[in-house]
Amino acid sequence: MMSLFANTPKPPYYAVIFTSIRTEEDNGYAEMAERMITLAKQQYGFLGIESARDEVGITVSYWSDLTSIKNWKNNVEHIVAQEKGRDIWYKSFKVRISKVERDYGMT
Amino acid sequence: MMSLFANTPKPPYYAVIFTSIRTEEDNGYAEMAERMITLAKQQYGFLGIESARDEVGITVSYWSDLTSIKNWKNNVEHIVAQEKGRDIWYKSFKVRISKVERDYGMT
Repeated sequence: MMSLFANTPKPPYYAVIFTSIRTEEDNGYAEMAERMITLAKQQYGFLGIESARDEVGITVSYWSDLTSIKNWKNNVEHIVAQEKGRDIWYKSFKVRISKVERDYGMT
Repeated sequence: MMSLFANTPKPPYYAVIFTSIRTEEDNGYAEMAERMITLAKQQYGFLGIESARDEVGITVSYWSDLTSIKNWKNNVEHIVAQEKGRDIWYKSFKVRISKVERDYGMT
């Protein structure tokens, strides 16, 4: 169960909130999405990821700092995925880069 | 289509990232969830909301400032919902309060 939650450290850290609406086109999407998660997990500064989709998809990835987020955005394999995302997989999307200042919960 | 996306202003603004795992108990959940969205939209400082659920649920609400977030947390009707959430509807949840510093996208 807990693997669905990102096990993030004490704030501050960063959250990249990626909201998207998919096209009907599959065209390798599922495979690429899985590969990107595997690859993200290998990046320096990666802290965790949470993802859900019904009408809209929301993926939140957590990072230790802005430099790690920038490096991930510029990862060569990730750039290819981003381009296919714009061209084929997403009708629309929004990326928000935010600094987590406080967190709490029940686990 | 666009109503699934929050139409947020230029940063900075705040995002409350609410990640949850539900119990099997319905017990008025759907009705309460809908009511909370209606009520949140009436609050001062509310900017928008995005929500998706499959294995995990992710709801991100956007706010102009921390005071508005605090006021919403302390809203009387919302407090009742939070208590039922802890007691009945959620196996686990996490709330992260973050400041959106930058955003971009394709719409």
